[in-house]
Amino acid sequence: MKTYLKKDFPVSEIRRFLEPGPIVLLSSRWKEEQDVMTMGWHTVLEFSPSLIGCMITSSNHSFDLIRKSKECVINIPTVDLLETTVKIGNCSGTEVDKFAEFGLTAQTATKVKAPLIKECFANLECRLKDSKLVSSYNFFIFEVVKAHAPKTPKYPRTFHYTGDGVFMLSGEHVSKRKFFKSEYL
Amino acid sequence: MKTYLKKDFPVSEIRRFLEPGPIVLLSSRWKEEQDVMTMGWHTVLEFSPSLIGCMITSSNHSFDLIRKSKECVINIPTVDLLETTVKIGNCSGTEVDKFAEFGLTAQTATKVKAPLIKECFANLECRLKDSKLVSSYNFFIFEVVKAHAPKTPKYPRTFHYTGDGVFMLSGEHVSKRKFFKSEYL
Repeated sequence: MKTYLKKDFPVSEIRRFLEPGPIVLLSSRWKEEQDVMTMGWHTVLEFSPSLIGCMITSSNHSFDLIRKSKECVINIPTVDLLETTVKIGNCSGTEVDKFAEFGLTAQTATKVKAPLIKECFANLECRLKDSKLVSSYNFFIFEVVKAHAPKTPKYPRTFHYTGDGVFMLSGEHVSKRKFFKSEYL
Repeated sequence: MKTYLKKDFPVSEIRRFLEPGPIVLLSSRWKEEQDVMTMGWHTVLEFSPSLIGCMITSSNHSFDLIRKSKECVINIPTVDLLETTVKIGNCSGTEVDKFAEFGLTAQTATKVKAPLIKECFANLECRLKDSKLVSSYNFFIFEVVKAHAPKTPKYPRTFHYTGDGVFMLSGEHVSKRKFFKSEYL
């Protein structure tokens, strides 16, 4: 598996990785237990503070760990991890240790106890900011308190889910900067 | 501009278009006024009822029209509309009639008063379901009450924003269906 040389990355700029809508891996820890889950339902909500909204189905083992610890890490996998990510989403943390089962390396984070996944392109350390919509929609609002990403490549090659087992792989990047007002960049 | 031959599309299956995370055009109407805005911060929240969460900046003219009418249409543009979509996001509905300015055709919707944009690949008619997080995060939860999309192509060629004027264009689609448990498809 690929690994990336990551540096500190400004938390106010993580839209670069999340706004295009990739499938992510959420890692969590509560006491001695850790888990990983696959997630596709998320949105950026604010630049500063850096806020992300995530819908986490309550039947996931991770749901409990995140609810209790009020923390998680959003990890951005690239296409070399596509099959692994699908397999992670199709088994339960109550049955298998997903880090061991899928050969993932849990690294110590800086500001949260949930582990970073070394093999992912970027790691976003998150603290629960608002749980007002958790009981009605399983919708968590997290603040990204620390981010890790490589300097290059600038854009990860991500995968995006369409349902029915089919993924869209990210394609080319094009700049339309000349059509933007400077205050909207 | 392209146009698509659209049919009724099941509202419980609209993840196919939204979950990959494309930039969308929101159209709205209140009394005699209509507007269009460009939006990238949205997430699927539920299949049935078909729920979508959207962060709509309050400085948008559309914000008021949507808040008052409690309705909107989420339109999915394809890459032939990329420059138009950027231009729509860089001017205000208080200054220009965006339908006229950008040559868009407003079509009558079935269940809401907001117009469908004919030139977009798919149109999702939405009613406001929950405004609990509007005052704190400008976050609207809509229910998709009617959807229109072509039978083919199955997947639109969408564009996804990364910030700084740069867009990721959607790439190839791959099936990993064989790795899914049937209940997770």
